[in-house]
This record gives sequence, C-alpha cells and structure tokens, in this order.
Amino acid sequence: MATTSIGDVLSRADANLDGSLAALFDLLRIPSVSAQPAHAPDCRRAAEWVRDRLAALGFAAALQPTAGQPVVLAQHPGPAGYTGPHILFYGHYDVQPPDPIDLWTSPPFGPQLVDGPRGKRIVARGAVDDKGQTMMFIEALRAWHEAGGGIPVRITAVIEGEEEVGSVNLETFLEANRDALGADLALISDTNMWDADTPALTTRLRGLVYTQITLSGPSRDLHSGLFGGSALNPINALTRMLGDLHDAEGRIQIPGFYDGVTEIGPDLARQWDALGFDETAFLGAIGLSDGAGEAGRPALQRLWARPTADINGIWGGYTGPGAKTVIASEAWAKLSFRLVPGQVPDAVIAGLKQFLSARIPPGARVKVEVFSASPGMEVPTGSPWVRAAEAALAEEYGKPAVLTGSGGSIPVVESLRRLLGLDSLLMGFGLDDDQIHSQNEKFELRCFHHGIRSHVRLLGKFAGA
Amino acid sequence: MATTSIGDVLSRADANLDGSLAALFDLLRIPSVSAQPAHAPDCRRAAEWVRDRLAALGFAAALQPTAGQPVVLAQHPGPAGYTGPHILFYGHYDVQPPDPIDLWTSPPFGPQLVDGPRGKRIVARGAVDDKGQTMMFIEALRAWHEAGGGIPVRITAVIEGEEEVGSVNLETFLEANRDALGADLALISDTNMWDADTPALTTRLRGLVYTQITLSGPSRDLHSGLFGGSALNPINALTRMLGDLHDAEGRIQIPGFYDGVTEIGPDLARQWDALGFDETAFLGAIGLSDGAGEAGRPALQRLWARPTADINGIWGGYTGPGAKTVIASEAWAKLSFRLVPGQVPDAVIAGLKQFLSARIPPGARVKVEVFSASPGMEVPTGSPWVRAAEAALAEEYGKPAVLTGSGGSIPVVESLRRLLGLDSLLMGFGLDDDQIHSQNEKFELRCFHHGIRSHVRLLGKFAGA
Repeated sequence: MATTSIGDVLSRADANLDGSLAALFDLLRIPSVSAQPAHAPDCRRAAEWVRDRLAALGFAAALQPTAGQPVVLAQHPGPAGYTGPHILFYGHYDVQPPDPIDLWTSPPFGPQLVDGPRGKRIVARGAVDDKGQTMMFIEALRAWHEAGGGIPVRITAVIEGEEEVGSVNLETFLEANRDALGADLALISDTNMWDADTPALTTRLRGLVYTQITLSGPSRDLHSGLFGGSALNPINALTRMLGDLHDAEGRIQIPGFYDGVTEIGPDLARQWDALGFDETAFLGAIGLSDGAGEAGRPALQRLWARPTADINGIWGGYTGPGAKTVIASEAWAKLSFRLVPGQVPDAVIAGLKQFLSARIPPGARVKVEVFSASPGMEVPTGSPWVRAAEAALAEEYGKPAVLTGSGGSIPVVESLRRLLGLDSLLMGFGLDDDQIHSQNEKFELRCFHHGIRSHVRLLGKFAGA
Repeated sequence: MATTSIGDVLSRADANLDGSLAALFDLLRIPSVSAQPAHAPDCRRAAEWVRDRLAALGFAAALQPTAGQPVVLAQHPGPAGYTGPHILFYGHYDVQPPDPIDLWTSPPFGPQLVDGPRGKRIVARGAVDDKGQTMMFIEALRAWHEAGGGIPVRITAVIEGEEEVGSVNLETFLEANRDALGADLALISDTNMWDADTPALTTRLRGLVYTQITLSGPSRDLHSGLFGGSALNPINALTRMLGDLHDAEGRIQIPGFYDGVTEIGPDLARQWDALGFDETAFLGAIGLSDGAGEAGRPALQRLWARPTADINGIWGGYTGPGAKTVIASEAWAKLSFRLVPGQVPDAVIAGLKQFLSARIPPGARVKVEVFSASPGMEVPTGSPWVRAAEAALAEEYGKPAVLTGSGGSIPVVESLRRLLGLDSLLMGFGLDDDQIHSQNEKFELRCFHHGIRSHVRLLGKFAGA
C-alpha cells in the first residue's frame, strides 16, 4: 500500500471529523450505566447503536447475550485474500454512574463541545472512558472504508457493556467464542497519553479487587441515649476496623497483602524517573498539597507499581439534615484494592476476610461481597506490534511515544492472555485531567482527532503499508 | 379535697380513654419532624393542635414564635383564690425522622392500635416520644376539668417543637418569658418506667453534644486507579480518625474528655445493683450477645453514669448498587457524645477539635459543626415534689417507684435549672422496648392509661388533696 493511500485516508478522517463528533454525541446521549439495573435498557440501546455503526462499515455485527449486558461482536475478514494479522479490538460502551449529579456543570448525558485551555473539549459521561476512545477506532475504520479501499485488516471487535462493573460476564463470553476470537493481537484504547503533546503506550496495569462490606449489629436502630454505652454501634466498629487498614507509613495491614509483590527493575525505575513526573503539579490540579500512600517511594511507583486500598463509599445511620440520635443497626463500605503483578486476587480477598474477622467486635456480623477480582498485568514490550504502534504514534505526533504504567485496571487484558493467549497493545489518548469516573468528564477534541488519525496509521502498519 | 373526688376524676379518666386515644391519634397523624425543613408546616400544625386542645380546657394558650418551630405556651391560674404551687409542665410535639421508612410495618404517621404481648399498643412515630406522654398530662387535666371541679393547680404548660434537634431555640424563649415561667417546679413526662409493672422517677440524665464532621480532600471526585496511591482518600482518613475514638478498653481518647467525671456514690451504686438489671436480656431483645462500652463497669453505670461517643451517621463516596471506583472529594459523619454531670460541653467540643486536628492528614481540611451542647444533670431526691410523685405512683401501681438514671438527654432540665432556678420532676411511662427514635415506635396502651391516672393523682397531691 502506497504512502499516498495513507494520506488519502488521513485526509478523509480529517474531513469526517464533524460527523465523527456528531456520531459520538449520539452515543454519549445514551445513559448506559452498567452499575444501575434501571439503566439496563439504555445499555442495550448503546450496544445496538455500536452494532449498527459497525454493520454500516461492512462488519458482520451482532449482540451476544450474557448474564448481564450484551456484548457487541463484529467481524470483518479484511481485503479479499488477506493473510496478514488478525486484530481483536476491545472497547466498552458502558459508563460509570454520573453521581454526584449536582457537581456537573452540564447534563452528564447531554454532551457539549466547550472551549478549554487546549481548544475544544467534549464534556459528557463516557466522553473519553470509553465511548470516545472506542469511537476513534470505529471512525478510523470508517476513513479506511470510505477512502482507503476498504477495511485493510482482518478485525474482530468486541465492545462489551460491563467494564465499569468488573467485566463480570466477559470471561464466559470469551470462552464461549474462543474460535471467533482467535486473533494475533488485542488492541485496546482505554488508556492515557503522557501529556497532551506526547503519545504513550501503556505496558503495565494494576488489577482490581472490589468488595462491599456489611457490618451488622443490633437487630434494629436504637436510641443512642438509652442504649449508648451498652449496645454495639456498627458505625463505630466499622470505622475502627477500616481505620486500621494502613499503618503510619501507609502500608496496608491485611495479612499477606504484599505477598508476591516485586520491586520494579532498575531500568524501568530509571525510565520512570526520567519522565520527570511532577507530583506537586499532579496533586495541585486536584486541590491537594501532599502525596498519600506508602512513605518513601517515588510517586510513579506508588501510582503504577504499588498496590492500594481505597474506601470508595461508606454509609450508615442518619445522613439527612440536622441531628438524629440513633445507633444504626448496620453500616456499609465499598472497599477496593488496586493490585500489582504478583499479587493473587483470591489471596487478597482471603486476607481481607481474615483482617476483618480479627477485628470484629463480639456480637457483630460481617459480610464481604466481591464484585470483581483481577490481577495486575505487564505487557511485553519490543514485540512487532509495539514497534508498529511506536512508529504510527511517532509519525502522527513527530516525537516518540513513552512507555508508561497505569494505576488503573483493565481486567480484560489479563483475561485475554489467560483464556486466549493474546497479548494486548494499549494505545490510548486520554489525559490525566479528563475526570473519568468523576463529574464533568471530558475528552480533548485534539486527542479525539489525533487518536482517529493514529488508529488510521496503525491499521496501515498492520496492513503492511 | 376529699378522696371521693379523686375517685370521680379517675373514673372520668377511665371513661374518657377511647376519646383520649382518638385525640392522640389525631396528633400522631401530623408528621412534625423538626429535623427536616420540609416538615416545618407540619410542626406548626401540631403546635396549633396542642394549643387548641389546652384552650378547650380553659387555658390561655398561644403559639410563641422562635427562630425555629413555635412553642405552645398555655397558662391556667388554678381554682379561684388558689395559693398552692405553680407547676410548669414541659413536653414536646416534635418527633424524630421516621427513616429508614422501609423497616416500618405500618406507616409512621398512620397510627395503629395493635395487639402485643402486654395487650394493646399504639404504633406510630411519636407514640411515646413525646406526643403520647404529653397527651397523658393533657388528658389528666381534661378529667379534672370535666369531673373534678376544674383544673386543680396553677399550671403553665410549655410544649416545644425542637426537642429532637437539641432545643436550639428554647433557652431564648425561656429567657424572654422568664416572668410567666416563674413556677415552683417543672414536671416532665419524657422518661421510662423501670418495667411495665414498676413505675420510676428519673433522677439522673446524660447530656448531649451533637456534631457533624466534614472531611475535605481532593477538589473533585477522582478515579481510584489513576490517583490511588498518590491522592488522599477522605473516607480512608475519616475512618482512621474516628476509628481512634476509643482505646481497646472502650475509653474515649479525646483529650480531657473525662475531666470532671465523678464516680457515683456507694449508696447509689448499691441501689442500682439492687435493681438486678439483666444486660443479657436487655441486649438479647435487640439481637446482641455482648455489651459494649467501657470494660469492667456494670451495665447501669455504663448507661446512666458514664459518657459515650457514638457515630450516628456516616456517608461519602459511591453508595449505590454495584461498584464505582472513585476516590471521593469529601466524607461526613454525625458524631455525638452523651455527657454525665461534671463534664463541660464546650470543653468536650474543644477536645474533639483537638483530637481531630492531631489526626488530620496533610492537605485535608476538617470542619466541625455543633448542633447541640447540654451537660448531664442530677435531680435532687427527697424533696416534697418527689415524695408527692412517689405517693401518687405507689397508689396507682400498688408498689413503690424506683429512682433510676437515664442514658438519654433532656436538655431542658438543665436549662430550667440554670435560667429559671427550677428543679424538674421526671415521671415517665415509656418502656425500654418502645423503639423510640427507631422504626415501629410504640406505646403500651396500659402505660398510656396508667400514665393518665398517675397524673390525675399527682395533680391531686399538688392541690393538697
């Protein structure tokens, strides 16, 4: 394939940009919140929308039912007689809940294009995570379809609807569709750039164990005057138990929690140091003056190579205005752990149960529900796929991509390797300040645009252009 | 006044019982929840209802505005030429919020008369606290009005509407109406019997400091993967700070918290021991197997003579169904303290602030709001008023009343003594299992009935019958 052909496809992607944006806005208007059962019909609508978009590009596309939200499975054989690599593209159409709604400056499901310090930006829940990033790939396909002589590579797209709730039904789907998914490489766009001018490939991801803890005490709510001093208070007890999660140095006190955790090698440590990460600026942007986490470790290690324990929600008792002198019957917390390679999720869960049992006061009962459990991952560098992506990004941005870690979790990376033997290429275009999972989530228009163009180039590389 | 006259009044109270119950139900149907601004009109309706009820008995009754809910002030001079004691009756028409609503088996503001193990019981929010107990006194007045030749004593009734939110405007009212309130004794019916067959006078009350704590960290909600390990998590921090409230022996670790706390005398300790309080049964009724609080102290001391720290509510982050991997920007708790005589509320508040400041992580901010602050109280025993009440109760129940403490707080007792120099007589007819401040609050019909009759007798004693 000649260089001029790539130029034509890139020009078409540029000319298509307004339409690409309009399409993304259509998808963003669907409140496909997988965590909330009331939004199940919206999840299905989003899946149908993605299916139809891929079908219009010549894909054989269908919804595959699961025990939860459906998966979009779409296949294209590539050009006639194609013998090159088979690429499995993974994305997700579900989004995080928009709560707390009142902190949004525009409706979370009413996407806006607004001015920001880096030019226009798209504001909506899912703008970047992961509707925007998924749409970059689909729009790159469209440019090839319209101006490049067709889809240049054999592609199987898997766009799931439960990534934000731990991809609880994805492994069953992967196992059931093992034959259709027998690709050479997985391509995933759900990660960040190093900064707005510097592309990145992510080679290290943290895993996630997400739990909900219920602590039960009295059989009913009690008057704190008539019972206080004799009756167990589950909220007091829960704060006492969870307040003990970290020691004074920020180390997590769950038995065996650090088993299997290894230090990063000196080369990687040097590379990360060379990135010149400015934790003061990173935290200053979110109103914080001091770093948290394990004492004495560099920030990028704490973010990319060390495990965490964060309480994501807590509730119990009276939470309305004013005073209510009650001792609540129960108290709850959502507690999650980011894991690094070497930690075994089931062992962390067992350690958590042991930690809680050792601290539960007499007469109380504790229940631990596990919503997701995935280990941390490392992606091999130096493969031809990584080299192709490095070349595509360098051509698009005029500077080399950096190889980074990510503190986030993409459980599918581990599932794809374990179940299908597939390595993943993580090429993403988000920025640290995109406010994913937060109010006013945004995606820079320039990131969206360069992301489409980078995918156009990468598809060209895969096709041997 | 002849004994036959008391008999006539008691007979009238018995004959009136159905009507007394119907009147109480009317009052219970008004959702006068003082903690919730939306219910302010209902509070006013309840006040008007009480005003009208007292006016019908010949009282000069009116609503006195405050900065919050109005106070019902009603005055009756007693019989012509009356020179006996002037009694100030105190009650409250406001109630606790009914939350959590879904645990009620009948509507909280739809009163029911249902069968229970001790006969009929009244089920509604406020059934006993304090609409039911206030109505006992009013219905005793009605019996005197109809069958005893009129109200036999000079009475000033103060029925306020903010007891459940710490009586925040009552002191201003008391000071502004000092002349009208210059009584000889305050009579309050907002406490419990020892058990369903044994009347009690309460001579010791705990005070209350009620606070709300806001812990602020990042300026917005964050993704726990991308920021976890570097960014402060306010929920983690709040559990860590509040988890430190008690030491391993159940003692409260706030600086100076126990300053001024004295041990009860050996006589009182012996009296309380002689009551044979069965903590196992007390806790078994609420589904608990083990007592909490300070190690090594008898249960009644922990309930009546020792201070507590209870978290009444906690919230922050994602509390909906499923998983959301968020680090919240803020976390909140409602934290209250029951105080005993000798503790100074302002010193406890200062100690709390010191305790929190010493534990706040770098970069976080803590705010402490104080909703109420009242000290613990002791009521003098051996006065003619206590002897009159002991006699009335002994005649009604055929056995002597016991002198008890209460773990609850009635801040007005302290205000009445400090501002007006008034001692209080605490004669109440609730039971430990009445579930006040909880779902399915109830009042035993027999307690309501004997309570009316006991007040009839007490009014007779005060009148010199």
